[in-house]
Amino acid sequence: MPNYTAPLDDMMFLFDKLRNNQNYNEIEKYKEVNTELVKDILSEAAKINQNIILPLAKSGDENPTILENGVVRTPPGYKEAYKRFIEDGWTSLSCDPKYGGQGMPKTVSAFFDEMLSSSSLSFKLYSELSIGAYNCINHHANEEIKNKYLPKIVEGKWSGTMCLTEPVCGTDLGLLKTKAVEQPDGTFKISGQKIFITSGDHDLTENIIHLVIARATDSPKGTKGISLFLVPKYKVNEDGTIGIRNGISTGSIESKMGIKGSATCVLNFDDAVGYMIGPKNKGLNSMFTMMNLERIVVGIQGLGISETAYQNSLSYAKERKQGKTHNSKSSNGADNIIEHADIRKSLLNMKSIIEGERALCFWLSQQTEVSLYHENTKVREEASDFVSLMTPVVKTMFTDLGMEITSDAMQVHGGYGYTKDQGIEQLYRDNRITPIYEGTNSIQAADLVFRKLINKNGDIIDKYLNTIQNDLDNNIKEIKPFIDDFRSQMQILIKFTDWIKEKISNSKNDASAACNDYLKALGYLSIAHSWIKVLEVCFKDYQNNKDFYEDKIQTAKFYFKRVLPRAENHFKTASSGSDYIMNFKFN
Amino acid sequence: MPNYTAPLDDMMFLFDKLRNNQNYNEIEKYKEVNTELVKDILSEAAKINQNIILPLAKSGDENPTILENGVVRTPPGYKEAYKRFIEDGWTSLSCDPKYGGQGMPKTVSAFFDEMLSSSSLSFKLYSELSIGAYNCINHHANEEIKNKYLPKIVEGKWSGTMCLTEPVCGTDLGLLKTKAVEQPDGTFKISGQKIFITSGDHDLTENIIHLVIARATDSPKGTKGISLFLVPKYKVNEDGTIGIRNGISTGSIESKMGIKGSATCVLNFDDAVGYMIGPKNKGLNSMFTMMNLERIVVGIQGLGISETAYQNSLSYAKERKQGKTHNSKSSNGADNIIEHADIRKSLLNMKSIIEGERALCFWLSQQTEVSLYHENTKVREEASDFVSLMTPVVKTMFTDLGMEITSDAMQVHGGYGYTKDQGIEQLYRDNRITPIYEGTNSIQAADLVFRKLINKNGDIIDKYLNTIQNDLDNNIKEIKPFIDDFRSQMQILIKFTDWIKEKISNSKNDASAACNDYLKALGYLSIAHSWIKVLEVCFKDYQNNKDFYEDKIQTAKFYFKRVLPRAENHFKTASSGSDYIMNFKFN
Repeated sequence: MPNYTAPLDDMMFLFDKLRNNQNYNEIEKYKEVNTELVKDILSEAAKINQNIILPLAKSGDENPTILENGVVRTPPGYKEAYKRFIEDGWTSLSCDPKYGGQGMPKTVSAFFDEMLSSSSLSFKLYSELSIGAYNCINHHANEEIKNKYLPKIVEGKWSGTMCLTEPVCGTDLGLLKTKAVEQPDGTFKISGQKIFITSGDHDLTENIIHLVIARATDSPKGTKGISLFLVPKYKVNEDGTIGIRNGISTGSIESKMGIKGSATCVLNFDDAVGYMIGPKNKGLNSMFTMMNLERIVVGIQGLGISETAYQNSLSYAKERKQGKTHNSKSSNGADNIIEHADIRKSLLNMKSIIEGERALCFWLSQQTEVSLYHENTKVREEASDFVSLMTPVVKTMFTDLGMEITSDAMQVHGGYGYTKDQGIEQLYRDNRITPIYEGTNSIQAADLVFRKLINKNGDIIDKYLNTIQNDLDNNIKEIKPFIDDFRSQMQILIKFTDWIKEKISNSKNDASAACNDYLKALGYLSIAHSWIKVLEVCFKDYQNNKDFYEDKIQTAKFYFKRVLPRAENHFKTASSGSDYIMNFKFN
Repeated sequence: MPNYTAPLDDMMFLFDKLRNNQNYNEIEKYKEVNTELVKDILSEAAKINQNIILPLAKSGDENPTILENGVVRTPPGYKEAYKRFIEDGWTSLSCDPKYGGQGMPKTVSAFFDEMLSSSSLSFKLYSELSIGAYNCINHHANEEIKNKYLPKIVEGKWSGTMCLTEPVCGTDLGLLKTKAVEQPDGTFKISGQKIFITSGDHDLTENIIHLVIARATDSPKGTKGISLFLVPKYKVNEDGTIGIRNGISTGSIESKMGIKGSATCVLNFDDAVGYMIGPKNKGLNSMFTMMNLERIVVGIQGLGISETAYQNSLSYAKERKQGKTHNSKSSNGADNIIEHADIRKSLLNMKSIIEGERALCFWLSQQTEVSLYHENTKVREEASDFVSLMTPVVKTMFTDLGMEITSDAMQVHGGYGYTKDQGIEQLYRDNRITPIYEGTNSIQAADLVFRKLINKNGDIIDKYLNTIQNDLDNNIKEIKPFIDDFRSQMQILIKFTDWIKEKISNSKNDASAACNDYLKALGYLSIAHSWIKVLEVCFKDYQNNKDFYEDKIQTAKFYFKRVLPRAENHFKTASSGSDYIMNFKFN
């Protein structure tokens, strides 16, 4: 079983030293969320993750969730852990105090999301989708529904799902067939099949609140005829108690490469009673507010699993002796493999990506809070634009790089990485879903290029690139070499941006074939930008925490010398166009 | 279950049109191995692979090999398939007719290796190691042993293993502890534990012939005290019949991420009778002739699995409808995903890598035959140099790119790629061992840089690069754009070669940190070189097979525009040196 120690030092460094963002500081309700409080919360979070949730990873992998006589049973230990999890109030961390939540900002809850992902992604998913459902209901439902459902979800007694995918439509929701027939009392009867429903059924909570997209009988075809419905597993009585079973059954659960502790269900809706949430035919919009927040969390999953992969690779490399280095001082014929250049490179690659991602994610969490709660509409809107721009970037980069890091971790472990004992190969398998679900990474790239880049005449990306450039103007001479490396890649990204904007308008195929490359280039630069902000603190505050800052500076150096340069090749290949791709005749 | 159709057209194209190599043509014994004969063999090979071996992949994954009361049992269907496999003579394909073999060259048997890898890697491993043992015994043992053991191995009634790894030594064999105590009759008693032994025990053959490296009691420490022993599972009587059980038991079998049908064993040797093969204390040399051939075959495994991943991605992309393209002619709202630029790019990436690799492998097979059987010592030696140079390249590139391709195949399949039903995720899991075993890919890179590049004063790499450059001098004007792209990368590779040679002598850490990058750069160029030789045929012979050649030309175009340019970034990052890597203080 892998070990895991929550990286509290790095998290507290970010919270303490990089929180100083004017717009974020102006949010009234977070003024009391100070370093001491957050330190206490994260320390407790570390304990439950390290001691109780981490062991569930192996348990879930060895004893996958099963469907027995129509009932889904979670792996051994899940029930007890979940009970403790909700008793300690972890589902309520980021929820509104109005419904029993603790009202913590994402700058805190994102760290908790990371820890959970590091410990057991399968277990995390049971509460993660509940938070998704919470957000969706909180934003779009009427007061009656909110008051009836939200307290139970916040408490963790009820959980939630997002029911989008059907056999013929994953990416392309316009094709969906699930029907909603309006009843005289204003409710709907929902019928159809939904597939790949995470936590679609399980034995951890008393009720499951499904958020289902479906087409009302009189709605148009395509994406413009989709509405959103709340469909509970058990109907809820007027007094909030649980009533009779609704018309939902679990057809089967998927046997998967990884996240085997998570129940991925085929759900059959058969005249199930549902309640419309938000305006008719605007269901996709409502769902997407939930989806977007969820996509960032999927990025964080990749980050969390990467951290566990790194920690275990590092400790293995310190213990495993194999081969002599050029500078060997060993007398028994072998050095610890951490002395070998290639292993060191691999470890630094992991570390420099992970810490850069965590810093970027912290910035994005701040922006998200500003976009939701700042008093000034214009400020809110600008932050919201940044969040929408960076959502596909964070989702894709963190999950793809998570594949690289978990695969490299296997490689560091050699044959022992491929066997089940160490649990390293499970990290890869669990993480492998993250580039697929919540919109494949190709869809993210298309979303970035064909929606986010052209919104508001392309102003969003320009504003973002300007923001980055402005952050380069500082007088710290030690940062200069980093900034020089950065600027040369930045010039390429700017050219790439101009190129792709032009292609979006006059040669869509070229732009389509370049989406992934553009996302990657932007992603590597965004992470580098976060590193520059980290470096600023490191150099300014150097004397106060020399060892910690020196470690950061050297880690950043690796990122700028060995990771960031990957960006430029993406422009080079993308700019070769797409004719030879689009005209190819596949046999 | 994935589908698979052996790519006979491409294989026969290579055999027919790219065989025309003077040195190879001069090998007397292969003069009769002509197109018709090979076509017949490969057609039969395709049948047994597609019909009988392919289904074993799923069977082995769902019912892994087990150890029961000390006996290893292979998955359902393996025994019957293996019986048919040896009855049809497939184990004997490349073996010497003297021992009952068919004497086919590697230009043929490599295609068979590829097909087997495409169908079921787990099943393949049972006979693959036998061929390894055959080669090792054939090269190093005395006549008595050869006559006693080889006919049974060639027939497939007995199988073989390579026993190198021990708990404390994988990469670093100098640390090995297995002891060999000489007996008055000249035999040895072998005691120790070997781990990760592929096909170490199973129920497919009457006997298993282990090739074991161990240290004689009076031998020195380190790699210079290692000898090679033949240790049969059952002792063999003078008349060749099977005698009593030898002192070898199976301690356990590994539970692994993939190749679950393959038995990966812990073998305990307890005073097992062994016979020394080859000269005392030169065991590693003897083992390495076997290892080197085996490493190329591991590369072919990656190629074979990539082919299956590609074929299934292609057919899925033609059927799955999702989303509209910019040029959509669809009226029902969705196009087949093969119309989407990003999916096309992914498919072409796979195809262009696979076909380039296959061509490179064909060239290497020819070189291997020349290195073994050409009459002229100098010619043999030059070929042998090329083979030794390209062995780590092929092993690493084909297996690493196999990871990329099998992962991309999952991505093309979306959620269906992550579930077990389609068998796509299994391709990734099965292939994931290939960058690890037979020397991790890091070891391959170090082998390339610290052995192959400096051998003979660096002449080998220079000769290889010259050979490539000479092949660029042709007068076909259509190839010019390809050659232009090639030359610009070639210039970088030449600089990289000079740089790394210098570092090998004056800054070993820089060279160590650059090994993987150098291997990759050389690998991408080598594959491109093979593409150029393919293109020559395509353009010269264009009128005779337009559709086939046009497909090749367009596929090559993708390789040169989108894959080959990856090479240059490797030099850029590598040349940033290693101080910041070697001096980093890991916590």
